[in-house]
Amino acid sequence: MADAFNSSGASPPKTIEPTYEGDFVLDGSLPLECGHALICPTLHYAVYGRLNAARDNAVLVCHALSGSALVGSWWPEIFAPGAVLSLEHDFVICINMLGSCYGSTGPGSVNSETGEPYGPDFPLVSVRDNVRAQSKLLDSLGIRRLRLVLGGSIGGMQALEWTILHPERVERALIIGVTPLSAMGLALNHLQRQAIEHDPEWAGGRYLPQRPPRRGLSLARQIAMISYKSAPLFNERYGRNPDRSGEDPYVAEGAYGGLIGGRFDIGGYLDHQGKRFIDRFDANAYLAILRAMDTWDPIRGYSSPEEAFGRIRAKLSFVGISTDWLFPAAEVRQFAETIRQAGAHADYREMESDHGHDAFLAEQAALVRLLQ
Amino acid sequence: MADAFNSSGASPPKTIEPTYEGDFVLDGSLPLECGHALICPTLHYAVYGRLNAARDNAVLVCHALSGSALVGSWWPEIFAPGAVLSLEHDFVICINMLGSCYGSTGPGSVNSETGEPYGPDFPLVSVRDNVRAQSKLLDSLGIRRLRLVLGGSIGGMQALEWTILHPERVERALIIGVTPLSAMGLALNHLQRQAIEHDPEWAGGRYLPQRPPRRGLSLARQIAMISYKSAPLFNERYGRNPDRSGEDPYVAEGAYGGLIGGRFDIGGYLDHQGKRFIDRFDANAYLAILRAMDTWDPIRGYSSPEEAFGRIRAKLSFVGISTDWLFPAAEVRQFAETIRQAGAHADYREMESDHGHDAFLAEQAALVRLLQ
Repeated sequence: MADAFNSSGASPPKTIEPTYEGDFVLDGSLPLECGHALICPTLHYAVYGRLNAARDNAVLVCHALSGSALVGSWWPEIFAPGAVLSLEHDFVICINMLGSCYGSTGPGSVNSETGEPYGPDFPLVSVRDNVRAQSKLLDSLGIRRLRLVLGGSIGGMQALEWTILHPERVERALIIGVTPLSAMGLALNHLQRQAIEHDPEWAGGRYLPQRPPRRGLSLARQIAMISYKSAPLFNERYGRNPDRSGEDPYVAEGAYGGLIGGRFDIGGYLDHQGKRFIDRFDANAYLAILRAMDTWDPIRGYSSPEEAFGRIRAKLSFVGISTDWLFPAAEVRQFAETIRQAGAHADYREMESDHGHDAFLAEQAALVRLLQ
Repeated sequence: MADAFNSSGASPPKTIEPTYEGDFVLDGSLPLECGHALICPTLHYAVYGRLNAARDNAVLVCHALSGSALVGSWWPEIFAPGAVLSLEHDFVICINMLGSCYGSTGPGSVNSETGEPYGPDFPLVSVRDNVRAQSKLLDSLGIRRLRLVLGGSIGGMQALEWTILHPERVERALIIGVTPLSAMGLALNHLQRQAIEHDPEWAGGRYLPQRPPRRGLSLARQIAMISYKSAPLFNERYGRNPDRSGEDPYVAEGAYGGLIGGRFDIGGYLDHQGKRFIDRFDANAYLAILRAMDTWDPIRGYSSPEEAFGRIRAKLSFVGISTDWLFPAAEVRQFAETIRQAGAHADYREMESDHGHDAFLAEQAALVRLLQ
């Protein structure tokens, strides 16, 4: 991997290839919480390992905002021998979220009612809607019960929602670095939305595939990146160093005279992250998943936290990350405590890491050690 | 003040009127650290109180990013009887920064070499350059020595720079909520710059006065606002409440179908802050001051911290703010300690506040109590 900012020096872990990767088309309509419906939506999914005869070895992994069904590619170390999942003993399923751009129905899909891509008319598909759709896919695979459902960030939102919506179907859940978004998290998403909307190429969401709002999506990703990482990590890695490509922040460079100077290293890093992202993600899909994240509130529709969390039968484990400021560890701990007090079994443990929210992806080996 | 988000319930403190407000035109050229020069730049300034016969009662207040020379308008409570400054005993001077848009020479000023406004060609005027220019203004007023120089944020950068550049001219300095920007601070400025540059109205900095990059400047301000405030304050004030004007985040509103929903209250608050700001600030001026902030490193040009900070003769007091994450209190404390170890007299105290970086403006009475 030729990546100027892959400074860890470690070779990237091997990708685990899925046993099968394919599409499930839901038979009929998926009613949505917002009042709309998706007609025969597609869920793109991947499986790893084999379902046993008793059909009791299924594990569902739920991916984070920009993830895909290929959990073996973005979370390979949890499959390491003796780690969280076993290719020998488990049947691991991962399903691309509705609204995403990695194979499941999303804003880029054709709306059968109009014959045109949904674009900005793609409806709000909530975390709960996603869980309902996922349960239909598991039905089709003959899986009644999950040994484990797990995920970080919006993946953790789905994992918890599974235990509330389908209490009889989940044995354990592992929920990493997540609570309902706090005001600061909602603020960060509000900024990211504007970054995309302000790009003239966005065109109210009706952009041409060959002319997407690249600068807006890049800025949105960069805003997100500062919330995924931590100030200590940035200080250690980038500090006040000038950009490693040689720009001098103390002199004016480029086209704009004195107002825009050469970058510091952190600026080069963020630009690099933005550039990488626009080659692999779609702006409308990004907006769709931001909204699912914004609107997730597990007690919405119930009369009380007790009524919502009292439904849970699974054993829950929560993980907070010490330097996470998007989903602060203290709030994850408090969230687990609230759920415990509502009568569910919930424990909490904390991951010490400088990596901020991103630690569950950036420090997989440390996460595995914590979970063992 | 009709302000939906002025939730404190307190009536805004009275503005203090200056004794005099006017322009000082520097005689000749101001050479800049970047190698360029400003020809006969204007410094707009305001004074409060009267200079005594001994000329030993002068105090210089340095303003923060979007401040002006009218310190009596944005920091009135430090003039309260028994507070930090006395209208009876002190002669208080406040000078608009070069690069700003409140009367001093900036990107909106005419470049005498071209007869056109500088626009994006306005050179980098560093914090140190500003201090050099300010010293000429004080010379013109016959002020050799300052009883006190003080400021928060980039105002604190100027205050400290004064004690290094003109050690014999400063008796005391009060430096609030500031260190050289950390990597996270540089990152936040990098994001804000892009927000402005991406606005098509910015036009590479050559926008028409009647068509400024309003949306870009608004987003930049909103990014800044999250760094000026704190997560606890946002949770307490806005939480996950829907926007107070009645939008519903759970349904799609407006023109964009499902991808952009009704706002949460924090979104409404940030939009409101952005709107207020674009009516009072200029985008190029904003960029100019971001660069001055980015590039401030008080030991730059010296062989060691000891050489830079060893020059200081003033008594320094540093204030960190407990919930400031733009300039974290622990870093302000460490900065004060570094300066102390270099041989200067520096003490440190901490302001307990939920307001984050903004506390020195938002909780002036508490700041005054801390300083008494």
